[in-house]
Amino acid sequence: MSSQLSVYNTLSRTKEIFEPINPPFVGLYVCGPTVYNEVHTGNLRTFTSFDIIYRYLVFLGYKVRYVRNITDAGHLTNDAGEGVNRMESQARLEKLEPMEVVQKYTVGFHEVCRKFNLIRPTIEPTATGHIVEQIEMIKQLIDNGVAYESNGSVYFDVKKYNEINVYGVLSGRNIDELIAGYRDLDGQDEKRNSIDFALWKKADISHIMQWPSPWGNGFPGWHLECSVMSTKYLGETFDIHGGGMDLKFPHHECEIAQNVGAIGVAPVKYWLHSNMLNFNGQKMSKSLGNSVLPTELITGNHPLLEKAYSPMTVRFLFLMSHYSSESDISNKALQDAEKGYKKLMQSLKLLIEMPFVDGEMDSALDNEINKELELAKDNMNDDFNTPRALANLFALSSHINTFFHNGKKVVRIQRATYDELVRIFNGFLLDVFGLAMEEESNSMAMDGVMQLVIEMRNDARNKKDWPMSDKIRDYLKNAGIVLKDNKDGDTSYEVI
Amino acid sequence: MSSQLSVYNTLSRTKEIFEPINPPFVGLYVCGPTVYNEVHTGNLRTFTSFDIIYRYLVFLGYKVRYVRNITDAGHLTNDAGEGVNRMESQARLEKLEPMEVVQKYTVGFHEVCRKFNLIRPTIEPTATGHIVEQIEMIKQLIDNGVAYESNGSVYFDVKKYNEINVYGVLSGRNIDELIAGYRDLDGQDEKRNSIDFALWKKADISHIMQWPSPWGNGFPGWHLECSVMSTKYLGETFDIHGGGMDLKFPHHECEIAQNVGAIGVAPVKYWLHSNMLNFNGQKMSKSLGNSVLPTELITGNHPLLEKAYSPMTVRFLFLMSHYSSESDISNKALQDAEKGYKKLMQSLKLLIEMPFVDGEMDSALDNEINKELELAKDNMNDDFNTPRALANLFALSSHINTFFHNGKKVVRIQRATYDELVRIFNGFLLDVFGLAMEEESNSMAMDGVMQLVIEMRNDARNKKDWPMSDKIRDYLKNAGIVLKDNKDGDTSYEVI
Repeated sequence: MSSQLSVYNTLSRTKEIFEPINPPFVGLYVCGPTVYNEVHTGNLRTFTSFDIIYRYLVFLGYKVRYVRNITDAGHLTNDAGEGVNRMESQARLEKLEPMEVVQKYTVGFHEVCRKFNLIRPTIEPTATGHIVEQIEMIKQLIDNGVAYESNGSVYFDVKKYNEINVYGVLSGRNIDELIAGYRDLDGQDEKRNSIDFALWKKADISHIMQWPSPWGNGFPGWHLECSVMSTKYLGETFDIHGGGMDLKFPHHECEIAQNVGAIGVAPVKYWLHSNMLNFNGQKMSKSLGNSVLPTELITGNHPLLEKAYSPMTVRFLFLMSHYSSESDISNKALQDAEKGYKKLMQSLKLLIEMPFVDGEMDSALDNEINKELELAKDNMNDDFNTPRALANLFALSSHINTFFHNGKKVVRIQRATYDELVRIFNGFLLDVFGLAMEEESNSMAMDGVMQLVIEMRNDARNKKDWPMSDKIRDYLKNAGIVLKDNKDGDTSYEVI
Repeated sequence: MSSQLSVYNTLSRTKEIFEPINPPFVGLYVCGPTVYNEVHTGNLRTFTSFDIIYRYLVFLGYKVRYVRNITDAGHLTNDAGEGVNRMESQARLEKLEPMEVVQKYTVGFHEVCRKFNLIRPTIEPTATGHIVEQIEMIKQLIDNGVAYESNGSVYFDVKKYNEINVYGVLSGRNIDELIAGYRDLDGQDEKRNSIDFALWKKADISHIMQWPSPWGNGFPGWHLECSVMSTKYLGETFDIHGGGMDLKFPHHECEIAQNVGAIGVAPVKYWLHSNMLNFNGQKMSKSLGNSVLPTELITGNHPLLEKAYSPMTVRFLFLMSHYSSESDISNKALQDAEKGYKKLMQSLKLLIEMPFVDGEMDSALDNEINKELELAKDNMNDDFNTPRALANLFALSSHINTFFHNGKKVVRIQRATYDELVRIFNGFLLDVFGLAMEEESNSMAMDGVMQLVIEMRNDARNKKDWPMSDKIRDYLKNAGIVLKDNKDGDTSYEVI
């Protein structure tokens, strides 16, 4: 009997057995990118972590609706929600319409996702696509007495909310300490309390991105979109909310307050947070010059990179740390990842190519492989522990290589063990970890599959199964493939 | 002195010199796809036509803001704007949230754009992303007396509008004839006149896609989104509005009426319409069984296709007709396009590789090449006449091939002629026509043959022919091919 999936829930600060609200369905919401510049590698790590979590849930048989938003407006420049709209200031800088900036970086983000083999979410809603819904939620919050209009803006009344609820439930922060520690910032004179955050910001006439509302023209506060879009597509309470650890406070804390304030229920059963990505042990930052973009990793075009690293190498590097631990990029770590990636994919190829041969059993070997397979599953079930599951795959890869060196076949284990080995080794690498072969051995594959087709065609002819024979002929013709029956009885093929 | 660009303006029914409102800026709006199923090949032709028009404007040095919308809601099932929301009925069919359908087909559409080398527009706004703006325009139309609320829906009052404006200015249709010819349809009892069209439709409780509005919950009429998004991103009056000829009436006619009714000015200086795509001389339709999808063209997987055709072959076929003429797909035409494409790309390769060598001049040759270059430019300036420009490129390709056969260098012409040859021959093929070098025939062949194998494997499974099913599995394994059964019942393959 395998272990059950458990996840570390930031909300309860404990590891909990994962029990979806309405199995086999799972609702997964992940905070997506703000598309005002190129996605940075730290974000890519977060999105890859949740890509793997999504893939594993699907691997386990859950039917997952996976929503990841695109913040195309209203992301304000400081944590508390004040300041200028980032989208717009960037747009003016480049003399572009804000939605041109949005399009440019959205297209770029999707291109990065494609290269790094991230599965596109089931739904990718945008903030500007949900202005109506955001206005509706603000109205509800005002009606419920936990938000107030002030000078054309609307703020969430944190103290009022805290009278019957607990603000800080996710981050563990205390409202009084928060108030005491607050810096003086824009909009403070409009607010009842310094920690109140903006739900709607008044826009002056020079503000390009603005919409009419019951409180005049303005734009939504950043925290609001996720409350609105997660509940719209996943329901008032859903299973998993993910995001980078930097979003825990205030963004996710505000999300909870908004949902509880408007709807009366906590939105999320399991809060999952991925950790930061460093470079050579230091936080990446522009001022340190150690901020490397995904596109720079692929091209090697950065002073700190010794060479180019493939998307799968980077993906493998991410797998080498647990999603909730810090991960570190360095040339050494990348080169280790490159070696590890190649080693496992090589074993994968061998495993696929070698036949299983029934015969004498080696119980010790069979047990050892089974134990490693169980450990691999246990480790993934243990809050998606990819580095430990990778270690299990490395151990299995040694067995696979031994099979190869001792006669190029899988022997001395049970058929069931072999089947499980294929299911887990291939399934984890390709489907769950999302690794793909980078140098496509297409022509070898083509040769292999054409052998099958030629044999089937000869069988069909021998059996005078003309419909089958015709079908094969037509398909090959469509595919631009010509068969040639050679004098020696062999059949060869050519792509035209 | 080269000719000036002229375009056929559907509005004036004449060819006019193209003079942008605010040069060097050009605003271009194109009606985009409705993402409730796979983009069909007729749409692909339209989008390719405007892709080429966009590319040519950029080639001429204009700074083009190119907006193409995505209709993700509110596209009603009949021309007059009544009926059910297409998006939603499709969603229920597939038991999906409407935005899941939107995501699936938006991602699919962008994938087709990528394969066929269509440049992504500067902005791709969505209908659901502009609900607020649509409500605002409806309010304006009601204030201006050309729209009225009726039973929770809002209609455009065509007769009232026609009292001081002309409805039918684009299509040349007459309002009295339109009224006389009108069929009895849903919503007629709510309307003042049969030809009035919906701006906002009331939604009952079972309607998933709905938004609150001053008239109750509902969703916008299809014609409205283009009026709202074109003016939002390009201004109240902009240069070019494009779309398929089937949209001229009523969609574009309604757009003009909405803009004039709300803002008081006609929105568009030049209306450009691309023509239809036929198959073997017949209109493509599902009932005739001659409707071929772009993905089917690429795989060859359609009873009417003799083989697979590459995206660039299809693109070349489109170039072989003027955008405002009908184009016809047939196996013969595709095979001609394939030859033509290969011939020109071969010459392009030669031209890129051959050096220019100064020396003795052949004035006749020099004149001939210059004449052909001028004609190529004249033809593109003549309302983007790609088939005639292609003929010029074929003539030039003969010269290039002659250079190659006579010593593999470009000689006996002026340096300036050579430079212009390179600029036009390469520039037209790559930048304007958007053709790219293809080395894809192998992967296309692989796709084709894998379709056959997957079908045979499914047959074998259905017939419980386990020896056959096992044989296929073993062969694929040896070839390093992994099959994946996807959620939607499709099977895909991966070479590892």
